[in-house]
Amino acid sequence: MPSLAPLLRDLNYDFTDQRLLRRALTHRSHSSDHNERLEFLGDSVLNFVVAALLHDAFPDMNEGDLSRLRANLVKQSALAQIAGKLALSKYLRLGEGERKSGGSKRPSILADALEAVFGAVYKDGGFSAAYRVVSHQYQPILANLDPHTLGKDAKTQLQEFLQARRLSLPIYEVTDTHGAAHNQSFDVACRIPALDIVTTASGSSRRAAEQGAAQKALQDIAGNKDVS
Amino acid sequence: MPSLAPLLRDLNYDFTDQRLLRRALTHRSHSSDHNERLEFLGDSVLNFVVAALLHDAFPDMNEGDLSRLRANLVKQSALAQIAGKLALSKYLRLGEGERKSGGSKRPSILADALEAVFGAVYKDGGFSAAYRVVSHQYQPILANLDPHTLGKDAKTQLQEFLQARRLSLPIYEVTDTHGAAHNQSFDVACRIPALDIVTTASGSSRRAAEQGAAQKALQDIAGNKDVS
Repeated sequence: MPSLAPLLRDLNYDFTDQRLLRRALTHRSHSSDHNERLEFLGDSVLNFVVAALLHDAFPDMNEGDLSRLRANLVKQSALAQIAGKLALSKYLRLGEGERKSGGSKRPSILADALEAVFGAVYKDGGFSAAYRVVSHQYQPILANLDPHTLGKDAKTQLQEFLQARRLSLPIYEVTDTHGAAHNQSFDVACRIPALDIVTTASGSSRRAAEQGAAQKALQDIAGNKDVS
Repeated sequence: MPSLAPLLRDLNYDFTDQRLLRRALTHRSHSSDHNERLEFLGDSVLNFVVAALLHDAFPDMNEGDLSRLRANLVKQSALAQIAGKLALSKYLRLGEGERKSGGSKRPSILADALEAVFGAVYKDGGFSAAYRVVSHQYQPILANLDPHTLGKDAKTQLQEFLQARRLSLPIYEVTDTHGAAHNQSFDVACRIPALDIVTTASGSSRRAAEQGAAQKALQDIAGNKDVS
């Protein structure tokens, strides 16, 4: 394993017992002293700290929106992104097979290891340490997120945009289908007469094609600043 | 609302700002200053504290078993039971309609209010206060739980009991079915030749009937101390 110094600097934390950090970086394929129990602990400390950060940052937001934001901030891909910034893959201890098959780049392994690191900080330094370390990673993300759109699908965003302006809702229409019964592809048009917008998209389900067309409509709207 | 003194005594906590506790006890049917945001916070502080308590109490337990135990300790019925011991229903503030329809006894409302109370303690006194209050409620439960069976269904428990003693697995057999296609009932027998046990049960699905028969076999085993 390379020196842990850069990781400790980026975490903004010094371990009293560095064996905890080492364990947090050890995948079960490597040895029996692995990170799964720390991951259990870290998952819940992370969920709690992010909940507390959101509760403070958005004092007027209802519970449903807080839950939506949290779910998006702690989902696997979000964690894997933070793990990427910390270059966690460099420090992971994986079994031979896992390493050769690219395990150190796998989002699930990276996300689990990051949670385990948070759990290790809690074990080592208690709650205030865990709060500081999780906050340190999340404050820049919170500063940049759009609370009204994060985690909302394109159709929902489009609908809310139009409703806020008292405009008629979009009309989705399947314009064509291709392929055999179990391998079909759908062409969908999304029309917003009030804005003179028509977009089209294809997808392997009607739903997927509608989302694609709604996404393009949102892009059209964003490109046309007169509208928003 | 009656005096909050008995509740504060049972929680083992004094609020600096008692308005937080009042809000935690206010259902959304009562007024706009309701408990849903505190519930969001309390749900996650509860999940974390219970995770930490389990992590400490069972140092050799794997992540899967820890998760199973936690899920059972924080599920709605478990929370409603704690709320019952605290007589939370006496203190709830509900809208007229909710109160008349028995809302103060509804497990979902009680469980949510209890989570909100934990969230209020966190807001009022910080993490160490929340940890103490949640621990105070859960330590007696942890002291009495059986980590090997809590949250496991009867078939799983029976299978593990037999495997631990290197005995053959039970044989489940549908012995009869009654009723029409969409309203059937199944009779199932569970046989454990090595222990000379045969039990039977009925259910609206094969699975439900098997669980019932396994439960009876576990009771037979528990009644016959020679076996265990």
